[in-house]
Amino acid sequence: MKISMFYIPTFFVFLHKAKFLLKTPNKKSALSEIHGVEQPETLSTLVASQIQQFRRKQPSAEELIAGILKGDKTALSRAITLVESTNPEHLAKANEVIKGCLPHANHSVRVGITGVPGVGKSTFIEAFGKYLTTIGKKVAVLAVDPSSSISHGSILGDKTRMEELVKDENAYIRPSASGDTLGGVARKTRETIILCEACGFDTIIIETVGVGQSETAVHSMVDFFLLLKISGAGDELQGIKRGIMEMADTIVINKADGDNIAKAKLAKTEFNRALHLFPAKSSGWIPKVTTCSAYEQTGIDAIWEIISEYFELVKANHYFEEKRQNQNQFWMMETINEQLKSHFYNHPNIMQLLEENKKAVQNNEISPFAAAMSLLDQYFKK
Amino acid sequence: MKISMFYIPTFFVFLHKAKFLLKTPNKKSALSEIHGVEQPETLSTLVASQIQQFRRKQPSAEELIAGILKGDKTALSRAITLVESTNPEHLAKANEVIKGCLPHANHSVRVGITGVPGVGKSTFIEAFGKYLTTIGKKVAVLAVDPSSSISHGSILGDKTRMEELVKDENAYIRPSASGDTLGGVARKTRETIILCEACGFDTIIIETVGVGQSETAVHSMVDFFLLLKISGAGDELQGIKRGIMEMADTIVINKADGDNIAKAKLAKTEFNRALHLFPAKSSGWIPKVTTCSAYEQTGIDAIWEIISEYFELVKANHYFEEKRQNQNQFWMMETINEQLKSHFYNHPNIMQLLEENKKAVQNNEISPFAAAMSLLDQYFKK
Repeated sequence: MKISMFYIPTFFVFLHKAKFLLKTPNKKSALSEIHGVEQPETLSTLVASQIQQFRRKQPSAEELIAGILKGDKTALSRAITLVESTNPEHLAKANEVIKGCLPHANHSVRVGITGVPGVGKSTFIEAFGKYLTTIGKKVAVLAVDPSSSISHGSILGDKTRMEELVKDENAYIRPSASGDTLGGVARKTRETIILCEACGFDTIIIETVGVGQSETAVHSMVDFFLLLKISGAGDELQGIKRGIMEMADTIVINKADGDNIAKAKLAKTEFNRALHLFPAKSSGWIPKVTTCSAYEQTGIDAIWEIISEYFELVKANHYFEEKRQNQNQFWMMETINEQLKSHFYNHPNIMQLLEENKKAVQNNEISPFAAAMSLLDQYFKK
Repeated sequence: MKISMFYIPTFFVFLHKAKFLLKTPNKKSALSEIHGVEQPETLSTLVASQIQQFRRKQPSAEELIAGILKGDKTALSRAITLVESTNPEHLAKANEVIKGCLPHANHSVRVGITGVPGVGKSTFIEAFGKYLTTIGKKVAVLAVDPSSSISHGSILGDKTRMEELVKDENAYIRPSASGDTLGGVARKTRETIILCEACGFDTIIIETVGVGQSETAVHSMVDFFLLLKISGAGDELQGIKRGIMEMADTIVINKADGDNIAKAKLAKTEFNRALHLFPAKSSGWIPKVTTCSAYEQTGIDAIWEIISEYFELVKANHYFEEKRQNQNQFWMMETINEQLKSHFYNHPNIMQLLEENKKAVQNNEISPFAAAMSLLDQYFKK
């Protein structure tokens, strides 16, 4: 089957150009300042040959697959870098690697973790991850954070904060891929999961920052969804984003230590009551609320017990496989739908007409439906 | 601006054909039974001329607009029939009529009403509608019920159940349009709202059946969303669909009469507590819970008071206009996105390839992303 990587890169190139134009209206690029300074010829030949040599050293797809399958973290990292690349050649190679890894993937539990900033996600993941490696698990920690594309990987800070886990040979931590869209970031993370699983990681933790739609994206790529909260001065139930509570398979109240223990217990009762307001889950699972202290490393084992209980249930009633199949279908469709939209809305003729039609709709000159049909007419004509 | 109605009809024709093929695999149509019986020639000429005459009598778009603007319900009904038609000529005419009505629309309050079967929606709408006409309102009752497309308008039963309201000259009741997709039904209802408003109806009630995604569709076309519930043996909080409670601007507990009054009050307390669990609404409105008896016609005035209070707030803080603008934009985009998908998924080459790729994804032979890209490649090639 022929696979074309054509649409993604053109879209990225387009965005890149558009940004550049926006930043420097009628201005010369900063690079033009050094125009006229001749490049020493010898150096440039040297650099060129070095780059060529370096390129030659890039392992082939087969080498990467072999490396990943024997648990080589360097091969894994290199393959993930290919997945995250916007270079069409890299993406083609990434696809080959993924194809080779697919038959060896899927043997894992995938746990999504979300919580607003301040609940102690990094500390929790460190404590949780360390606990898991202690009981013999191989843990990969990934992240979906579309906002990190602005700072190009500021979430790396998290990596240094997970000091213990990052040194653990049975753990692998990878910061969030950057990307212009959540869809792009999510796609990269999904493919990274496959690579990590093929590399022998049996517990995949996917962290998200609790901003906007990223929870929904993470929810659609994990088996189990953990919502991290803290108790506080009456704010137990604040900051609950639309639908997040409904997604949770367990709510963990962190920082249940010292003076906070009583408050955390109260919060547990509140959340338990709140969870009863939601309809039964199709998994047959009844969401549980528990407390822990990531800092004091208490209550962590109970969380893993809850998760294990969940997996026992959903593997027995086949919900586990069913959900994964549905997620695969969902991601295929989602990619198609996103690309169809991106192709339409970035069509040069449409961009101008869209603005005109939006204005006409706003001024009640045309109904939203008629405006849409007029645009579609233009689009399909070409 | 040229408006093409090309895509919708071809899609419907396609679906129609597909259904036909499914129903009669290798079988002759029932119609072929009477093959050989000659049609009396005189009758057919007569019928043909009658049809031609009837067609000639069809009012023009201008005549329909003029009729609607002076409050003629017959003109309104005819225009709605055009909106609901799948005939491209009718749709073109419908668009002309809508265009003429648009500058006179928008002066209304649009109230969505939902509730599971058995809460007494028809009785409630009858009592509520009658109350509104009593205080001088002109009320149009529409419905969004995609399931009615199966029985082709079984919801008409509701119309006969609203005996009093249907006879009221200041009320207009129209059953749900039929359609193969929720998107189609919703589009027709949205355009019907415009026509009703231009016809002088200042209170638009849109009923939905509480099934699947139809609430979301209705929520995106109304200003105010009313959730109808009943109290019962401990089931106050059951049957709450994902996200429905969050959409509600008010929850009305119906059947608060006789022995039920105490239970309804208890349910009110429960719902009030439940509503506090949700994040604040961007309208600035705090959802209210109230009880009523549509049967005994008590508590109806209090509901209208709540609704009026809401409109006072959102008109003062400009949320009202903002929301309507957003809804228009949403519907334009939604129509475009639905059509893009429909064009793709009904493409003859894609339909076969899609099945193949779905299978490959299922068997872990290809990643969902690679499968999607391969399909898109085929699609854009043509």
